[in-house]
Amino acid sequence: MPEEFTVTPWEVKGEIDYDLLMQKFGTSPIDDALLDRLSGYGELHPMLKRGIFYTHRDMLWLLNEYDKGNRFTIYTGRGPSGNTHLGHLMPWMFNKWMQDTFGVNMIFQMTNDEKFLFKDLTLEDTTSMAYQNALDFIALGFDPKKTKIIVNTKNIDKLYPVALSVAKKITFSTAKAVFGFDNSTNIGSIFFTAMQSAPAFLPSVDAGKQVPVVIPCGIDQDPHFRVCRDVAPGLGFPKPSLICCKMMPGLSGGDKMSSSDENATIYTTDTPKQVKKKVGRAFTGGCVSVDEQREKGGNPEVCAVFKYNYFMFEHSDDELNELARKCRNGEILCGECKMCLTQKINVFLEEHQDRREKAKDVIAEMAYDGFEW
Amino acid sequence: MPEEFTVTPWEVKGEIDYDLLMQKFGTSPIDDALLDRLSGYGELHPMLKRGIFYTHRDMLWLLNEYDKGNRFTIYTGRGPSGNTHLGHLMPWMFNKWMQDTFGVNMIFQMTNDEKFLFKDLTLEDTTSMAYQNALDFIALGFDPKKTKIIVNTKNIDKLYPVALSVAKKITFSTAKAVFGFDNSTNIGSIFFTAMQSAPAFLPSVDAGKQVPVVIPCGIDQDPHFRVCRDVAPGLGFPKPSLICCKMMPGLSGGDKMSSSDENATIYTTDTPKQVKKKVGRAFTGGCVSVDEQREKGGNPEVCAVFKYNYFMFEHSDDELNELARKCRNGEILCGECKMCLTQKINVFLEEHQDRREKAKDVIAEMAYDGFEW
Repeated sequence: MPEEFTVTPWEVKGEIDYDLLMQKFGTSPIDDALLDRLSGYGELHPMLKRGIFYTHRDMLWLLNEYDKGNRFTIYTGRGPSGNTHLGHLMPWMFNKWMQDTFGVNMIFQMTNDEKFLFKDLTLEDTTSMAYQNALDFIALGFDPKKTKIIVNTKNIDKLYPVALSVAKKITFSTAKAVFGFDNSTNIGSIFFTAMQSAPAFLPSVDAGKQVPVVIPCGIDQDPHFRVCRDVAPGLGFPKPSLICCKMMPGLSGGDKMSSSDENATIYTTDTPKQVKKKVGRAFTGGCVSVDEQREKGGNPEVCAVFKYNYFMFEHSDDELNELARKCRNGEILCGECKMCLTQKINVFLEEHQDRREKAKDVIAEMAYDGFEW
Repeated sequence: MPEEFTVTPWEVKGEIDYDLLMQKFGTSPIDDALLDRLSGYGELHPMLKRGIFYTHRDMLWLLNEYDKGNRFTIYTGRGPSGNTHLGHLMPWMFNKWMQDTFGVNMIFQMTNDEKFLFKDLTLEDTTSMAYQNALDFIALGFDPKKTKIIVNTKNIDKLYPVALSVAKKITFSTAKAVFGFDNSTNIGSIFFTAMQSAPAFLPSVDAGKQVPVVIPCGIDQDPHFRVCRDVAPGLGFPKPSLICCKMMPGLSGGDKMSSSDENATIYTTDTPKQVKKKVGRAFTGGCVSVDEQREKGGNPEVCAVFKYNYFMFEHSDDELNELARKCRNGEILCGECKMCLTQKINVFLEEHQDRREKAKDVIAEMAYDGFEW
């Protein structure tokens, strides 16, 4: 019997059955036909080949529009409630692939209002975190000319009228059913989904014509965009397409990397020593002794270290398969494997932290409508 | 047995029992002691002497603060959903008396978002109506240096962070209980009361210290400010004081002038001919024949024409009493009385319409934060 699990934009718990989630949410699988179609635009991203991005809404329509010359805009974002960790970077890296492959514009929304409303944080906290998170986003190399960062409170003049038109079409019943709200939910949180929908319609508002939009995101964000898609036609906007990924696992073996478990979470600002310590403590499911491990082998299916390679740090399928084989045969021990991952992460972070510093020079020009940071 | 009545910010129906309403809402009566105190600052406004402004919250505290040198700000407003009628002008005239008497600043909020959310109107409709209504407000002669007009969508950058902090403190339970919302209410309407509260805190935000605020308004608006007062201390703001009036009656004899009954409503842009026609059709409760009226007399208590004099057009108590006496004795007939009121209204409107035209020249300088109209 499968364990119980909960997946909403604000809570992910239990062992997630991703197929069941796709059925529950009513999204479509990314099948071979769609992968074939996508590969016509450039080499497929490993996250597509490995089924990490595994489900979608209306991607074929989006590509048809693109082929007709109606270029789409990518819409992504972040709820700034703490430092950026590797789990946040994962979908952003996929966004980078999307922008490079299709050469399109991108909106990156920072929901500092959301995190203020849903968490015990001040608006100053979430706003300064938005700046920190934006540096990580920029560090991934997005085209500054084609990428605009929205901070909800700073761009509220543009967002609010659109959010109002969305809010007028959503009843409390709907918000309750989709997000699990109850009578004790604050009225700002209830309104918030309208703010999350607004950037999906901004490209059409700005262009004065129907601009297709695609939202690459974790499957946990689907509820927002289900609501957003429902109201779109009534407002004269195209329904945004979605392409959704699984959650980046935590180092302790859980389903999702979480900021609340700091020791099992690698932040983009971690030092090599911190990374070494955290990976060193990671759950692998390996045997208790070296001899037993050599004899029985390990199990990559449950190993957090393997998952990190699978999700993010080993792009070569051959290398990944070889690593799995060696693990199962007991040819490689958990300690070696951890050292190897530590090194990969530290090489990545060294470069990332360097680019993150340089991001401070371009962040102002990437602000939507030129607000001050 | 008293008839059922409903009074919320969005619906007023039935015959209102104002004393019961005061008890239900938990406001205090404006008693002789408070009237005495108020008369120390200048001649009492007829609406105070006649009990049209009849109930309050924390007015003594406000005056104590004023006496200590902590000048308050007046906060008033309008939900722009149609042309201005005389019922709207009534509390604004009282505001003018307040500003003149105490020489204080005033904020006038135009909730174009509210009317978009609650009515079948576009945001363009309610925004252009905000401009029209503002002309009427300005025409009453407020000090342009001390009076600032907020339009919610235009000043959203200042209002939104304050509204967020309010919204975080209000649950759906509270909104439901106070405003009578249910599951079919849209999520924008649910959030809206936070926007209505925000200007009560803006003077403190702008000044960087606790600024007392008084809100003169129709008693139907009290629910918003009950919620606003509840959250104020937790946000570090003083609770706004309230001074509330009864509803301006309609010409057809109902309890409240309503835009939905155009023939019983006098708009500020009406022509002398329209006014004559509307007053001519007003409900007086007079007798069917002249002879009968001469013999039995009329009843000013139920007469809409008399109420118009009482609420707005006859400031002299002596003249008003004389009018009542003549009516009761059958010395004056309804036709004469209607002609007399028509003339008073037309004299007022002629001057008002002239000042309303001139308001177009100063409206820009009265915009809070200098937005474009």
